[in-house]
Amino acid sequence: MKRLDVIGVGPAGPGWISPETQSVIGMATDLVGYGPYLDRLASERHRCHASDNREELERAAQALDLAAEGRHVAVVSGGDPGIFAMAAALCEVLDRHAKPGWADVEFGIYPGISALQAAAARVGAPLGHDFCVMSLSDNLKPWEVIARRLQLAAQADFAMAFYNPRSSSRPWQMGEALSILRAEQPGETPVVFAAAVGRADEWVRMTTLAEADASEVDMRTLVIVGNSRSRFFAHAGRDWVYSPRDYE
Amino acid sequence: MKRLDVIGVGPAGPGWISPETQSVIGMATDLVGYGPYLDRLASERHRCHASDNREELERAAQALDLAAEGRHVAVVSGGDPGIFAMAAALCEVLDRHAKPGWADVEFGIYPGISALQAAAARVGAPLGHDFCVMSLSDNLKPWEVIARRLQLAAQADFAMAFYNPRSSSRPWQMGEALSILRAEQPGETPVVFAAAVGRADEWVRMTTLAEADASEVDMRTLVIVGNSRSRFFAHAGRDWVYSPRDYE
Repeated sequence: MKRLDVIGVGPAGPGWISPETQSVIGMATDLVGYGPYLDRLASERHRCHASDNREELERAAQALDLAAEGRHVAVVSGGDPGIFAMAAALCEVLDRHAKPGWADVEFGIYPGISALQAAAARVGAPLGHDFCVMSLSDNLKPWEVIARRLQLAAQADFAMAFYNPRSSSRPWQMGEALSILRAEQPGETPVVFAAAVGRADEWVRMTTLAEADASEVDMRTLVIVGNSRSRFFAHAGRDWVYSPRDYE
Repeated sequence: MKRLDVIGVGPAGPGWISPETQSVIGMATDLVGYGPYLDRLASERHRCHASDNREELERAAQALDLAAEGRHVAVVSGGDPGIFAMAAALCEVLDRHAKPGWADVEFGIYPGISALQAAAARVGAPLGHDFCVMSLSDNLKPWEVIARRLQLAAQADFAMAFYNPRSSSRPWQMGEALSILRAEQPGETPVVFAAAVGRADEWVRMTTLAEADASEVDMRTLVIVGNSRSRFFAHAGRDWVYSPRDYE
């Protein structure tokens, strides 16, 4: 068996791991990924290869080397492997840095539930109409590209979901993104901050573009910004937010 | 128990239904949704309320009426209920058409795997960088809004995923969308058509913006268009496509 499967175990907990993904984990001999993800799946029969969350290309190459040795390797992402996770890194290594020994490694990718979906579900249906998904990290793309994309996305009136909005090494990007959006969208546009959804320390705030405070956001936070028709409403003693299906 | 839960059972098959969603199905007394979705979940202990796929607001109101009578109702979508599915319709009815009897109905939404994720996984990682998600149906929004949004999305260099690209009653929209994109993006931009992913009649084609033929698309097809850096590559005897994580 020379096989590499790329899986995503959802944002948190076993309840969001698909049966298909669970089956891949059951068949794999080796798990490669960020340590805390592997800890969630620990089994005596797996060899675990934990790595830092930032070494994605090295991890992808290591996983292909293991598969080429005859192991059945599962590369483990949080969320969905295809959305700001390991699937693109694997494709990039196979495309740009392919080794002859990898040529006969069978390759598969399996969808999972992404953080944007878990965050949206907690508050209603803010992504129920057309939306876009962006990483606000300028580690792999220039800030000018991000700024221009935000401006165009606001002009297109997409609802938006942001990954990697802010970290200790990127403290100003989320505030700058809010400034760009405030120049294009009304202050009452709904904004959602959702951190650690599905975990014990889950934290969700619903606010508006005018009042959103970037300092409340960290790298674990998923940020959602509504479109011009997104609305709050109250039901069963709490607030919800959605983007209507119709658009006039 | 007065409770209404909105769930999504993935694009096909039991392998993409999350354990959390399976647990909601197990607790519900009544299932409300499009007949073919309910058929996938059939159990003797459920009352099933099948309806046409187009009557979303009526179905939402019916589900709330059942819950207000003391039933535990699960409203069943395909895919993720928050992405072009029933969560927004439920929110809309609760916001715009609330009845007093619904006020104490507990309400929950549970994320699922959407068709765009299953389609992307089949071909690689075309949504591995910033992307947008749109419905091409002009039933609930004017075509001018869609056309302008497509143009801005192309200028923002988003990868794109399209739901509801074409049907017998909307035969020209997909072709027109391709024309708008061809005016903004290079002809070699990767395009993916993916129909019925996960089903016996699954059909996936990888092509380019220049060669894409809208007549191959129907209402079951999920369409993905890459960004300016999306690339095809070959591995293990077939083609794959991805959008690199880096962007220069």
